[in-house]
Amino acid sequence: MKLTKQTWQPATEKIYDTIVIGGGAGGLSAGIYLQRYLLDTLIIDKGKARSFWMSELHNYLGLPPDTPGRSVLRQGKEHFLSLGGDLLDAYVEEVIDEGETFAIRVKIGRNNSQYHTFRAKYLIAASGIIDYLPELENMRNVYEYAGYNLHVCLICDGYEMADKKVGVFANSAGNAEVVFPLGWFTSNITLFTQGLFEVPDDLRSRLEAQGYQIEATSIEQFIGEDHQMTGVELTDGRIVKLDTGLISMGSKYHATYLDKFELEKQGGNLVTDKMARTSHPRIFAIGDLKVGLNQVVVAAADGALAATQIWRDIRRSTFSKTVVQQARD
Amino acid sequence: MKLTKQTWQPATEKIYDTIVIGGGAGGLSAGIYLQRYLLDTLIIDKGKARSFWMSELHNYLGLPPDTPGRSVLRQGKEHFLSLGGDLLDAYVEEVIDEGETFAIRVKIGRNNSQYHTFRAKYLIAASGIIDYLPELENMRNVYEYAGYNLHVCLICDGYEMADKKVGVFANSAGNAEVVFPLGWFTSNITLFTQGLFEVPDDLRSRLEAQGYQIEATSIEQFIGEDHQMTGVELTDGRIVKLDTGLISMGSKYHATYLDKFELEKQGGNLVTDKMARTSHPRIFAIGDLKVGLNQVVVAAADGALAATQIWRDIRRSTFSKTVVQQARD
Repeated sequence: MKLTKQTWQPATEKIYDTIVIGGGAGGLSAGIYLQRYLLDTLIIDKGKARSFWMSELHNYLGLPPDTPGRSVLRQGKEHFLSLGGDLLDAYVEEVIDEGETFAIRVKIGRNNSQYHTFRAKYLIAASGIIDYLPELENMRNVYEYAGYNLHVCLICDGYEMADKKVGVFANSAGNAEVVFPLGWFTSNITLFTQGLFEVPDDLRSRLEAQGYQIEATSIEQFIGEDHQMTGVELTDGRIVKLDTGLISMGSKYHATYLDKFELEKQGGNLVTDKMARTSHPRIFAIGDLKVGLNQVVVAAADGALAATQIWRDIRRSTFSKTVVQQARD
Repeated sequence: MKLTKQTWQPATEKIYDTIVIGGGAGGLSAGIYLQRYLLDTLIIDKGKARSFWMSELHNYLGLPPDTPGRSVLRQGKEHFLSLGGDLLDAYVEEVIDEGETFAIRVKIGRNNSQYHTFRAKYLIAASGIIDYLPELENMRNVYEYAGYNLHVCLICDGYEMADKKVGVFANSAGNAEVVFPLGWFTSNITLFTQGLFEVPDDLRSRLEAQGYQIEATSIEQFIGEDHQMTGVELTDGRIVKLDTGLISMGSKYHATYLDKFELEKQGGNLVTDKMARTSHPRIFAIGDLKVGLNQVVVAAADGALAATQIWRDIRRSTFSKTVVQQARD
């Protein structure tokens, strides 16, 4: 059931088999599998998964290629709730490892916030990442186009940019490297640095060798209408026309609650085994938090793997659900 | 486009970037990703993927839990074709590694068969497995219930069997071990050996310790109506009532075309790296053929991984699609 500020109490008095932090594609898929393994599951979701911002999911098997990301999330939540899972709209403040269980302290509500603690034997970190966007004075102007034809994921949307005039918005020389794989799809590329970094000589000569443009002036605003970006206005008044854009400014990881566990990482991503288990035996990580491909279908598969391994762990330690329930009764 | 006995010819004269053998969940997902990477793809499908037989797909994120497996396949094929992929209904007879390319010899049509050869740089083996079913004189009686409430996958359908009286149909002591994880969901289990194997003492005592029944008499037929199996009639005339069933008789691997490559295996399954590459650098394996969880969402994710790695390989060797196309022209 959906837990609220009014109905949270019984849930704080039990021990869930698993708490999933994050109600995006990975977390919901994990929740569906866990409930189908008859494991008590709570998903704590602060809303707005990365896929929530996708106007169309073009590459997910089984869904028409114009399906909005939020439809998948809506269907997934309904599916999870129909299986008896608990869902809480809250922000995770802290996770404490108590040995057999984790205590997870959450904040419910932005205003008149309540703080409560929920417990589980296993934890699945599925809280994902969110892309950094160009910081303009008027952020609404950015949100107008981001997720429409101002993309954040080359693997997802390279196809959408094929043979088009593409603006790439980067904030470091490293993040600017995306122009080269983008060059597979189109040769008409302008790199906008906005003066945020110096283009090293080596990068500059590789860009020039491909005929890519470099624009160092800052952006005043994106221009366009109906969520279709058609160019940028620079702070010096010039306008650069574009067909589409790709933002490559890195991502914020939503997992500070894991910092103290000092889990094994590679770059910013958690290292997991084939079943999505981190270096902590009772913490799993799925979707964009872990090393791998940041794709909705991969996150959904990760959820199936983590849930299955947790089921195997719990089953092997308790033998049967009946035994567990008898012990509880 | 759909290739037919009439329209196969131009396709035999080109070199595909990738040929995918198998048009199930994994193969279609791979095909969608490959076409979106602007890679020429041919899927060779002999029809009837394992998911084709699933009356309802209960655990696939984004789809209502009563979605038939064949709906996912239909949508996937339409999606793949809409991206310009080629699809051929044929049976793969032989794969020859020519060094830079594979030559794939297929048989088109069961009657008046034609034999043609298609070529590709990369091969994705996505031809999956099919479950062995009890061999009754009247196989139509088995097909009447298999995939409905006569299940073949504990992970998929354990939930459907919770607290029910379940018949397990096994053909070896090893395959009979499934009763123990099934015991997580229900304690009312009868193992039907049909006299196909002797139950070893150790297994017998573990079965008895759990209160599971053993029935050695062969099955005359499943009984029930409207695809709902309600029990079995034994060859000695007795009837055993059941709520549902689980077949555990192993699986046939549809990949004899790979035998001569002597790829690394674990059990009957192909060993792959994190991007689904086998021990042959240009052969990938996805879905049920490889080591891992036999789940539709996992196969779909495998397809995304294999396609992405093939794109990276080809991109790094040729730099840009434009260069490739100029070289072709």
